[in-house]
Amino acid sequence: MTSGYKRTNLALALADRAGHPTIGGVARDGRTHSRRAALYQQLSEALAASIRRGELLPGTRLTPERQLAAQLGVSRTTVINAYRELEARGYIRGQVGRGTYVCAVPGPGAAPLAWQAKLAWAVQHPADPLLGGLLQVASQPAMVSFALGAPALEEVPHRLPELLADALARDPAARWHGPAEGQPVLRQALAARLRVRAEEVMVVSGASQGLDLLCRCLVERGESVLVERPVNRVALQVFAAAGARLVGWDFPRADSEQLEDLILRYRPKLLYTNPTYQNPTGQSLSLAQRKELLALAVRYQLPVIEDDAYRELGLLGSPPPSLRALDDWGIVVSLGTFSKLLGPGLRVGWVVAAPALVRQLAQLRLRSDLHTSNVLQLALAELLRTGALDWHVRRLRSVHRERLETMVRAIARDVPRGALRFRPPEGGIFLWCRLGPGLDASRLLTRGLAMGVLIAAGPLFYPDGGGREEVRLCFASCPPPAIEEGIRRLGQAIAAELAEPAGPPDERALV
Amino acid sequence: MTSGYKRTNLALALADRAGHPTIGGVARDGRTHSRRAALYQQLSEALAASIRRGELLPGTRLTPERQLAAQLGVSRTTVINAYRELEARGYIRGQVGRGTYVCAVPGPGAAPLAWQAKLAWAVQHPADPLLGGLLQVASQPAMVSFALGAPALEEVPHRLPELLADALARDPAARWHGPAEGQPVLRQALAARLRVRAEEVMVVSGASQGLDLLCRCLVERGESVLVERPVNRVALQVFAAAGARLVGWDFPRADSEQLEDLILRYRPKLLYTNPTYQNPTGQSLSLAQRKELLALAVRYQLPVIEDDAYRELGLLGSPPPSLRALDDWGIVVSLGTFSKLLGPGLRVGWVVAAPALVRQLAQLRLRSDLHTSNVLQLALAELLRTGALDWHVRRLRSVHRERLETMVRAIARDVPRGALRFRPPEGGIFLWCRLGPGLDASRLLTRGLAMGVLIAAGPLFYPDGGGREEVRLCFASCPPPAIEEGIRRLGQAIAAELAEPAGPPDERALV
Repeated sequence: MTSGYKRTNLALALADRAGHPTIGGVARDGRTHSRRAALYQQLSEALAASIRRGELLPGTRLTPERQLAAQLGVSRTTVINAYRELEARGYIRGQVGRGTYVCAVPGPGAAPLAWQAKLAWAVQHPADPLLGGLLQVASQPAMVSFALGAPALEEVPHRLPELLADALARDPAARWHGPAEGQPVLRQALAARLRVRAEEVMVVSGASQGLDLLCRCLVERGESVLVERPVNRVALQVFAAAGARLVGWDFPRADSEQLEDLILRYRPKLLYTNPTYQNPTGQSLSLAQRKELLALAVRYQLPVIEDDAYRELGLLGSPPPSLRALDDWGIVVSLGTFSKLLGPGLRVGWVVAAPALVRQLAQLRLRSDLHTSNVLQLALAELLRTGALDWHVRRLRSVHRERLETMVRAIARDVPRGALRFRPPEGGIFLWCRLGPGLDASRLLTRGLAMGVLIAAGPLFYPDGGGREEVRLCFASCPPPAIEEGIRRLGQAIAAELAEPAGPPDERALV
Repeated sequence: MTSGYKRTNLALALADRAGHPTIGGVARDGRTHSRRAALYQQLSEALAASIRRGELLPGTRLTPERQLAAQLGVSRTTVINAYRELEARGYIRGQVGRGTYVCAVPGPGAAPLAWQAKLAWAVQHPADPLLGGLLQVASQPAMVSFALGAPALEEVPHRLPELLADALARDPAARWHGPAEGQPVLRQALAARLRVRAEEVMVVSGASQGLDLLCRCLVERGESVLVERPVNRVALQVFAAAGARLVGWDFPRADSEQLEDLILRYRPKLLYTNPTYQNPTGQSLSLAQRKELLALAVRYQLPVIEDDAYRELGLLGSPPPSLRALDDWGIVVSLGTFSKLLGPGLRVGWVVAAPALVRQLAQLRLRSDLHTSNVLQLALAELLRTGALDWHVRRLRSVHRERLETMVRAIARDVPRGALRFRPPEGGIFLWCRLGPGLDASRLLTRGLAMGVLIAAGPLFYPDGGGREEVRLCFASCPPPAIEEGIRRLGQAIAAELAEPAGPPDERALV
């Protein structure tokens, strides 16, 4: 504001000293005043011109009348009259007791609002279009997609549609306001299944929303967050939106020395891990590695977010106990979801946390989407209560086993030897493959797209540009004939890449 | 870190100068060393004691070996041996090329994690429990609640349950990943209804989520936001969570001079208004007021968020055109919802915005809950497509008219004359009442609770402590007999207040 006064006064003073009877830039506007124009008119026109030229911006406070009069050596009445005229013309506006301000002047036919200039920090860092692009391409009908994580969706528990209809038609709670923590019946059903107390359970719209709420609750912009490396794409996005600095812990090595070094060096605010049938690698931390991780977390008072989305999808034997089950200190928050059991499109998941934290998360939710849709919650509670979910999950595991075998056989048959190396996972829905010599994940993605097969290239899962020699294939979401067709196409893409490598890698091909 | 070195070195140096053979605070720990203890052992024990006492905090970098040796006048080997012993005992940890750091030492039986100390700014400002409290109390069966906003929930469109079941059973998209912007069929159906283009529509989980996404997209912590006054509670919460400074514009006066003054004075980032059948007052801005508001917004390039949740719920005649419909500059973003048509528990709403902004909102959503549940979106698209929603809304309006009349009659009959003064609204679901002399909204809320009727006290709707003489009654959500019973109880509460005023007002009674 001060600079506003100064500039005007300077312009006026200069005009004065040079002996010009008209002041400032009046002439530039193509208007002239006779030498006899009243002083107040000259002053008001000079100010109006400054406003039109943008030298005095809307909201600038003008020099108080008395002060300007003294500075210009004119009477206070002259200044008062000048200001009055400007106010009548809509250029300025006096506010009793607070001074006089420049108003915005409507331009000739105002342009559409430039939204880009209004964006907050959270959306100003370059948007990452990969995830959105995958969602678009994966739904093209001719495409065989191994890129997105989903269970076998043909296997709807046959009672679920009916349970949904019943909940909406019969339970008034389905349409009434619900508590932010979730419907009591679903919290209780989940608590019984997870062997925790109902007040430790919060229902969320997918595990990714749980992670977002936890971030908003725990992470300030600029703080460090320890994530495993590679790490699932959605978690990367959520942490990026929170403005976290990501620090990667090598998940396949799972070395607790490295973990402690990273904790010491970066003082992270929390640790995020998906220790069971991990997305993307399919690997799990051993019991010993879990205990080491927890011991470090407790020693450094480091909250641990355990993403446990795949626990129920073991293919061989049982998974190690969850970090939550091993946690005697209330330091683990765990995330679960129906996405990998019933389909990601439902958007229902849960958080298990200390009740104090559940209350905080609920407070945040009252400032956003309030709660997850009640009709879904009520139907899922009934699906759990009747045991129908257990039946469904058993069936799902055997379907997934068959699909994994189909994919492994198809790779042996249709993919050039040594081009995709992997260790079949003991659970989950992903086959993580290392590419053979001469292959690049992003180039292969592009080549595959052209041939009608979509894969997830390794760089998606690294915050720092790694993964060029790795790809993730979801073996669970396609029926066996589609798996065979997709792998046949992938084999051809690989053969083509090996015969004649494409141009520079281009992971933007998706967008 | 520097202060870390200094303190240790000082302690060591002092111990040295005083001629003590043991160094630092060793004795305090109850351990003694013979005068003959090797120098490196004395040094390592002194450091260990400092770490145990918390003088050297975990993560502190120790003085490099060579430098410490020089400072203490001992050989470098002594320091190396001391550090090695400390490392073996788990007190410190050397990192090649980066120095030696203090580790955290596990305490005797570590305490549960103190989550409170880990919370981010967003949840550290005092949580406002009123909204959560209302949601809890309003669902008590014996309570007649006029406090929460909801339409007549008995009126389910009879095909909706079946449409939900069909969508889940028959449409594979119901369980597959969906685009963040929403299911194309629902975006198209909403676009046709709202007379906009489909790419201007984004499906969200309730208008409150739309507002939250807009805040994350547009508002930085500490920026000012213009809201009407009084304003709906959820909007207040969302803006508070974004860290916005709220500036209130007197909605009942709707004075454009005041609006311009506020824009000039506070330079707000956006303006939020609910101009049609407003929550809580039930009033609407006139066409002339809408045009003035838009002219100012355009002149100052101020984005306008129009909450248009009640537009379809007119009781008498038609509402004025929406701000969006009057907007030639793309400056208005509008919010809508099925909450007031089908029930708040569904959590489905929409945002209408410039396509560039829709894309930004979608990017944010990919970092949170990804998208609204597909099965709901598909069923609602079908409800719109078949015209069943239009039938339902017509029916709803006539039910609401009847309920408003019931409430007005009951007040005339059962409430002491002059205690509740109001102007019946032309639409929406709220009756906004001014209390007569001797009544206080918060005290009346408490008194009503004890008598089995829940009202929304005026202060809920003011960011700045106004509203003590106003209450909001939702006339739409209870069937006529419950309305009559509730107003009878409210009349008794008012009579009791007038006869014998309660103690100091206590709006925390809810919690």
